[in-house]
Amino acid sequence: MEPRNTRFTIEYDGTRFAGWQLQPGQRTVQGVLEAAVLDLRVRVAGETRDESGGAERDGSGPGEDAARQDISERIPLTGAGRTDAGVHALGQVANATLPIDLPPETIASALNSRLPDDLLVKRAEVVDADFNARFDAVARSYVYLIGREESPLWRLRRWYVRPGLDIESMRGAARTLTGEHDFSSFCLAGSELEHHRCRVRAISLEWEPGFGGMLVFRVEANRFLRGMVRSIVGTLVDVGRGRTTPEDFSVILEARDRGRAGATAPAHGLYLERVTYTK
Amino acid sequence: MEPRNTRFTIEYDGTRFAGWQLQPGQRTVQGVLEAAVLDLRVRVAGETRDESGGAERDGSGPGEDAARQDISERIPLTGAGRTDAGVHALGQVANATLPIDLPPETIASALNSRLPDDLLVKRAEVVDADFNARFDAVARSYVYLIGREESPLWRLRRWYVRPGLDIESMRGAARTLTGEHDFSSFCLAGSELEHHRCRVRAISLEWEPGFGGMLVFRVEANRFLRGMVRSIVGTLVDVGRGRTTPEDFSVILEARDRGRAGATAPAHGLYLERVTYTK
Repeated sequence: MEPRNTRFTIEYDGTRFAGWQLQPGQRTVQGVLEAAVLDLRVRVAGETRDESGGAERDGSGPGEDAARQDISERIPLTGAGRTDAGVHALGQVANATLPIDLPPETIASALNSRLPDDLLVKRAEVVDADFNARFDAVARSYVYLIGREESPLWRLRRWYVRPGLDIESMRGAARTLTGEHDFSSFCLAGSELEHHRCRVRAISLEWEPGFGGMLVFRVEANRFLRGMVRSIVGTLVDVGRGRTTPEDFSVILEARDRGRAGATAPAHGLYLERVTYTK
Repeated sequence: MEPRNTRFTIEYDGTRFAGWQLQPGQRTVQGVLEAAVLDLRVRVAGETRDESGGAERDGSGPGEDAARQDISERIPLTGAGRTDAGVHALGQVANATLPIDLPPETIASALNSRLPDDLLVKRAEVVDADFNARFDAVARSYVYLIGREESPLWRLRRWYVRPGLDIESMRGAARTLTGEHDFSSFCLAGSELEHHRCRVRAISLEWEPGFGGMLVFRVEANRFLRGMVRSIVGTLVDVGRGRTTPEDFSVILEARDRGRAGATAPAHGLYLERVTYTK
């Protein structure tokens, strides 16, 4: 059969993951998902052989071993956003070229039956052979939740910040980020990038009632640098507390200096909400 | 000093608790909270003795041992609602007569520093000596959350029910519960009660957007029987699925027979929201 490029839309609770990206010896989203894909492939290939050649099911024969090795190579997934440890996703997107001859909906439910309960494939669909979840994304949207009450129920879902933030000042500062800027000031070290320019298409900070009330910060951009949203949120909260003026905030942005921003907001308030493609 | 009756308002994530009520060898909310109260009492008593009598801090002397034993008896908490294992609380209320000479706000923060992160004292206040969190409650309000999308992020916070529920039929059935009724049909076995009459003061079922959208069922009554809300919700979902008509629902209520209701909805969608007192 012809391997088919398949796009997955994925939700996860980031709490117990060491982030998206595969790392040896760590429980990562990519690692757990690739293991499930591989397990499904081995299972499907085994069943196909059983039906066609009548190979023994116990896998003890040397031929079975060889076939198993053959099909147990890694099937690499490409993710749209490399979320850090503890960061959640409502709509992460990834793709892989799958040598599995099943309809995509069947693949999604077969994967979900192999996945732990903090990781879910919400959708699987066949896409063009050249589709790449990372490079074809035209926009990514992140949400950051801030609670003003301590809450055991939300402790791993939003950042608790004492009440009294000046929301209007925070909004004013946030607005200066729209458009294209060099975001070096809001980027954690460790990424080898050609440039730090990002185009922010939309940014908002809204108060939402329900669940004790919370501040919802939402930002959409063509790309994000490592730790960028958390660094922006940490600095915006400094503005809300009056430690940094909205004018200082602009100065920090223009400084293109990693040492100027405020503390990085904790990972557990951050969600990769959506990835947008034109195709 | 005079022991002071103190009322606590408490939030907890019920996931890792075997319910509210103290049970030997189980991690219960009451047990964890009473242990924190006792630890604080021992600490405060130790400091008071140190200041007045200059007793040694290492607790190795025989006098210290005797004093410690003296103050390490259980200080019983009375809770307003005996939530089951896995059930959450946003506003559980409990009281205890505390021989601890500290302002209530200080007691709350001292307890919180001793409590695990899935349990929080939101408020502590001194109340009349005869106040009883259980018997003086005039109303309790529970919320049950139903999601129509599977969600790793909400898996321990709401019940996932496939889309397509007939909300209007569910509302119609729910409305028949208002007023005073014998709720034997919606009561789990195991409670020794004089009667099963409860007065439902308010009931609602609303669609709330946000977080993928969810159905919010809210019910306020003077008292609740064991498993009552979960049994009602399970039966209402049968109505929403068309398995039970709203007329059948009334028949089930009037039957006063535990065998007639639908399946009990899972604990993780249920929250004790508020307890109301006149004093």
